[in-house]
Amino acid sequence: MLDICLLGTGGMMPLPYRRLTALMLRLNGKGILIDCGEGTQVGIRAKGWSFHDIDVICFTHFHADHVSGLPGLLLSIGNSERTEPVTIIGPKGLERVVRALRTIAPELPFDIELKEIEGNTQTIHEAGCRIECFRVDHNVLCYGYTVNVDRQGKFDPEKAAANDVPMRLWSRLQKGAEIDHEGRHFTPDMILGPGRKGLKVTYCTDSRPVKAISEAAKDADLFICEGMYGEPGSEGRAREHKHMCYAEAARLAAEAHPREMWLTHYSPATAKPEEFIDVAREIFPNTYAARDLRSVTLKFEDDEQ
Amino acid sequence: MLDICLLGTGGMMPLPYRRLTALMLRLNGKGILIDCGEGTQVGIRAKGWSFHDIDVICFTHFHADHVSGLPGLLLSIGNSERTEPVTIIGPKGLERVVRALRTIAPELPFDIELKEIEGNTQTIHEAGCRIECFRVDHNVLCYGYTVNVDRQGKFDPEKAAANDVPMRLWSRLQKGAEIDHEGRHFTPDMILGPGRKGLKVTYCTDSRPVKAISEAAKDADLFICEGMYGEPGSEGRAREHKHMCYAEAARLAAEAHPREMWLTHYSPATAKPEEFIDVAREIFPNTYAARDLRSVTLKFEDDEQ
Repeated sequence: MLDICLLGTGGMMPLPYRRLTALMLRLNGKGILIDCGEGTQVGIRAKGWSFHDIDVICFTHFHADHVSGLPGLLLSIGNSERTEPVTIIGPKGLERVVRALRTIAPELPFDIELKEIEGNTQTIHEAGCRIECFRVDHNVLCYGYTVNVDRQGKFDPEKAAANDVPMRLWSRLQKGAEIDHEGRHFTPDMILGPGRKGLKVTYCTDSRPVKAISEAAKDADLFICEGMYGEPGSEGRAREHKHMCYAEAARLAAEAHPREMWLTHYSPATAKPEEFIDVAREIFPNTYAARDLRSVTLKFEDDEQ
Repeated sequence: MLDICLLGTGGMMPLPYRRLTALMLRLNGKGILIDCGEGTQVGIRAKGWSFHDIDVICFTHFHADHVSGLPGLLLSIGNSERTEPVTIIGPKGLERVVRALRTIAPELPFDIELKEIEGNTQTIHEAGCRIECFRVDHNVLCYGYTVNVDRQGKFDPEKAAANDVPMRLWSRLQKGAEIDHEGRHFTPDMILGPGRKGLKVTYCTDSRPVKAISEAAKDADLFICEGMYGEPGSEGRAREHKHMCYAEAARLAAEAHPREMWLTHYSPATAKPEEFIDVAREIFPNTYAARDLRSVTLKFEDDEQ
């Protein structure tokens, strides 16, 4: 089960009724946060989730509305008595930005491991997930993220027998280990059936609509995409500021055909993001204009039966 | 008229129902902000006040809960199309902290003038106010602030005549100018009666209760003081963390006898700050456990008649 909460849905600046965009995911007691603008820690409290279990923080880019909440969040994670390291993933420049912001959060009871993304795409395994970073098209270096929860095949006793795998190795192989035993090398695929459909969530803001996004969101269970401008005639503004309007996000979804799309990162001028939702739904019907704390729990296919 | 709004009242970390402590004052279209933790800009929006008119930002100290909102606030001031400089006042280290936080707010359409406080007390004139900074006793270098709106005496025509001040100079002298005219030096006191009572607001957090605070708040119209802990038996914790409990704040007020005292900077564990108010009121009856956005407009004495 993958718990998902869009902690905030605002772009540029936090408003009394809308926090800055940030996404949190929880899997088996581990947490992944994507973006952390000013007030993100309030969103986590409002949702009632734990600071202690945040293992990974991913930054799309280093504009303040996506990163300014980091010092306060780190201190709150520290106050939750976490001592295990926290991994922070982000574009080139990560070390410089984190070091600068830690000027006001210098002492933490846990280590920070920085992973600067290299190139246009990179895959990072953290918190039991396969995180795919993909470069998008903003006015600064910016990445989207796909969080995959992969699912191995079922245990297949006939395959185990055919491969002559000793029973005492089954449990460890099922947990993913590779084992050298009595002169032979055993791998999980020797006892498992074909891989099953996992879970996939793609998050992208701030960007022009580029093919890398629709490719990343291909068949996702959930695609969360910026919808900076909804009102008719905003295409020019979106192009100018390197953002997307609703229709552009919906066209990406129509190409990627995820199960559903949530819009986020609204312009502060957009008081009611659902007002223009029909523009998107004409292109991709399963679009939702998310509001703060919109949440879902994704389950594996056969868990749903 | 001096408009005052306690934008937030929390200490340590922002909560869904309580922003971090910050005070804003407005006088004749100019604004002074004291402290700027994460989410302070949301408080300003919630109050409906303008970012454009913030002329001065004062920091008590550089713990994150008092400073982490700076980058976002500066960007919001920039988005309000301000081009006039903004003055930032704070303890030694100000330049280092502001430079670090501006890593995520590098481009602003206005200049920033930094004034690092020197010594135990310093008086700075900004935004039409006389701002007195006074050193307090926290676990890092920390200052309280008294904002004074001084008020000159009334125009006294008999005094003007006795001093033989030409009528054509009256208006400029009343506005505070000193004038050399026909071989003589004229000063405002030559035409004005005795100075009248102005307005005075003292703000202090985070500190142990020291004499510098009660002296600074002497006869203030409003004394805003931290009340980190209200519950009985919290004196030891207050001493340990270099904060104050309600009774200690009230004893300072009893010495200073301001018109009233507002408590602020509550521990995140204090859900209902008014629960322990009697502890303070037994010592200083005119104490209020402020909540976010508590506001008042102070008027000069004879404006109240």
